[in-house]
Amino acid sequence: MDKPYAIGVDMGGTNTVIGLVDRRGDILIRSSISTVDYNTGESYVEALGNAINDLITQNNFTGDVIGIGMGVPNGNMNDGTVEKAANIPWAKTVVVPLAAMISEKTGLPCKLTNDANAAALGEMAYGAAKGLKDFIVITLGTGLGSGIVAGGQLIVGHDGFAGELGHIRPVRYNGRLCGCGRTGCLETYASATGVARTAREFLEIYPERETVLRDITTRPITSKDVFEAAKAEDKMAIEIFEFTGRILGEALADFITFSSPKAIILFGGLAHAGNFLLEPLKKTMAKNILSIYEGKTEIIVSQLNDAEAAILGASALAWEQ
Amino acid sequence: MDKPYAIGVDMGGTNTVIGLVDRRGDILIRSSISTVDYNTGESYVEALGNAINDLITQNNFTGDVIGIGMGVPNGNMNDGTVEKAANIPWAKTVVVPLAAMISEKTGLPCKLTNDANAAALGEMAYGAAKGLKDFIVITLGTGLGSGIVAGGQLIVGHDGFAGELGHIRPVRYNGRLCGCGRTGCLETYASATGVARTAREFLEIYPERETVLRDITTRPITSKDVFEAAKAEDKMAIEIFEFTGRILGEALADFITFSSPKAIILFGGLAHAGNFLLEPLKKTMAKNILSIYEGKTEIIVSQLNDAEAAILGASALAWEQ
Repeated sequence: MDKPYAIGVDMGGTNTVIGLVDRRGDILIRSSISTVDYNTGESYVEALGNAINDLITQNNFTGDVIGIGMGVPNGNMNDGTVEKAANIPWAKTVVVPLAAMISEKTGLPCKLTNDANAAALGEMAYGAAKGLKDFIVITLGTGLGSGIVAGGQLIVGHDGFAGELGHIRPVRYNGRLCGCGRTGCLETYASATGVARTAREFLEIYPERETVLRDITTRPITSKDVFEAAKAEDKMAIEIFEFTGRILGEALADFITFSSPKAIILFGGLAHAGNFLLEPLKKTMAKNILSIYEGKTEIIVSQLNDAEAAILGASALAWEQ
Repeated sequence: MDKPYAIGVDMGGTNTVIGLVDRRGDILIRSSISTVDYNTGESYVEALGNAINDLITQNNFTGDVIGIGMGVPNGNMNDGTVEKAANIPWAKTVVVPLAAMISEKTGLPCKLTNDANAAALGEMAYGAAKGLKDFIVITLGTGLGSGIVAGGQLIVGHDGFAGELGHIRPVRYNGRLCGCGRTGCLETYASATGVARTAREFLEIYPERETVLRDITTRPITSKDVFEAAKAEDKMAIEIFEFTGRILGEALADFITFSSPKAIILFGGLAHAGNFLLEPLKKTMAKNILSIYEGKTEIIVSQLNDAEAAILGASALAWEQ
C-alpha cells in the first residue's frame, strides 16, 4: 500500500467528527454526524458507517485506509464496546458492541477506547509523548480524564476501564460531592467545572473581598471568567488557580509514585491557564513528591490543537492494529 | 537444553539466600551468604558469584542454568543497579551495577528488581496470579511494598522505580511521620510497624480501656502481639486491625482506579492476620470504590510460602530473559 491512511472518529457528547489522517498526523478531510439524534446503536452505526464509507469513496481513498480508531465516552478498549454512557441516548442503559458493528458496516478493522486514552495515543503518535514509553495524559475539561502509558503500553486494566484518575480522592475530609456519588474526587476540583465551583465557594466564604468575579451576576461563573480575571490580575482569581494547582499537584505526586512517568502531559481547556495553574501545581508537586522521583517527571502542556487532537488520538488507535 | 533451571537470589537486609529453581517452582538446592559483611560491592559480588558458581558446579548443573534473577532492596530493573539502599553498607551511598557485575563473575545473564516486584513475578509464575495479566501484589512487612503488573507487564516506570505504593498518602491531615520524611504515607499505617504504632497510639489515646496489650511492658509491642491478642478476642486488638484494614481498603480503592487489576494479592506477615484485617479492608474498599469497578477485583492472600516466595519471585525474573 503506497499511502496508508487511518480514519479517526471523535465521538463527542453532541457531534461525532470523522477525519482521514495520514501517518504524519495531518487531517486531510473531515465530516461529521450527530451523536445523539439516534435511538438505537444500530441507527447510529448505520449513519456513522455511511459517513465513513462516503468520506472514503467520494475522495477516492478506497484501498488506502488501513482501519478505524474511535475515541468514545466510556469506551472499553478490551471489548470494543460503549456502555453506560450517561449522555448518549442509545448507550445509556445498554452495552453496544460498537467496534464490531462499525467494522461489519465498513469492512474495515475498528478499535475504540475512551477519550482520554485516545488523547494519550495521540500524544504518543504525534505530540509531546513522541518517543516516550512512560507518561500520563491528564485531560482537563468538564471533568478530569486520564490516559496512562507504561512501558510503551496503554494501561487499560482487566476490564478495559483503568485510569479514571479524576476519581482519585485527594480530599478525604469534607470533600466536594462528585457526580460519581462519592466525595473528594480530584475532578471536582481540577477541571473547568471544579474551577467554577471553587470560584463560587470563594465568593461565598470571603464576602468582604473585592473581585471582578463578583460582578458576574446574570449567568453562572465559568473557568474562562476566572482565567480572564486572573490575567487582569484579580487577586481572588489568581488564588482560585493556586488552590486548583495545589490539589492537582498533590495528586500528581501520588500518580508518579504509581507508574513513575517521564512526563505528565496536561491537555484541554484548563491546561491553557498556563502559569496561573502550572506554578502552584509544580511547586506543590515538588513539595509532595517522594525523594527518589524528585525532579524526574516533566509537566508539559499539550501542543496538539484541541480541535484536532481527539481525531488524531483516535486515528492513532487505527495505526496500532 | 533438557532441564532448564534458574537461580533465584533473595538479597535480604541480613542474609542473601540463593536457590536453584526448576520450571515448576520447586527449589532444589539452596545456599546463603551474608549481605552486610562486605565493605564494597566488589567484595559482595566476589562472595555471591562464588556461592552461585559453587552451587551450580558442586551439584553438576553446569550448562543447565539459564540465568540469574535477583530480588534486591532498591533494585532498579531498568539499569540492573542497586542504589541508596539504606541498610546495605556497600550500597548506602553509591550506585552499584550489581546485575552486570554478577553476570561477569558467573558468565550467566542476570536481572534484578526490587523485592516487591520480584514477589509479583513470583505470583505470576507460580502463585495466585498465574494466568492473570492485571494484578497488584502488596507486600505487608516492616514497610509496604508493591509490584504492579498491567497488560502482563511489570510496571517499572521510566527510571525503574515505579510502584512505591507504601508512600501513597491516604491520610492527608495529621498523618504519621514516615521514614521518607513526609507524613501520612500508607506504610506508616498498613505494615507490621504501622500496626505496632497504632497499638501504641490506641493505648495512649484510651488510657481507661482494658486490653491485654497493656500488659506488655518490658519490650515494644509488635504486630504479632496484636494478632495474638485479637485471636484471644481482645477488643482493642481487633479494633487496631479494623483501623488498619480501613486505611488499606481506602487506598486499594484508589489503586484500582489507576490500573483496574483483576486481583490484589496480599503478601507477607501481616497478610496472615486473616479476617481481622481482610473484613474491614474489603468492607471499606467496597464502600470507597468507583461504581464501574464494583465487585470486580478480588482480594487474595498469597499462598506462596513466605520463606520460598522471595527466591521464587527472583527466579521468575531469570525465566523472563
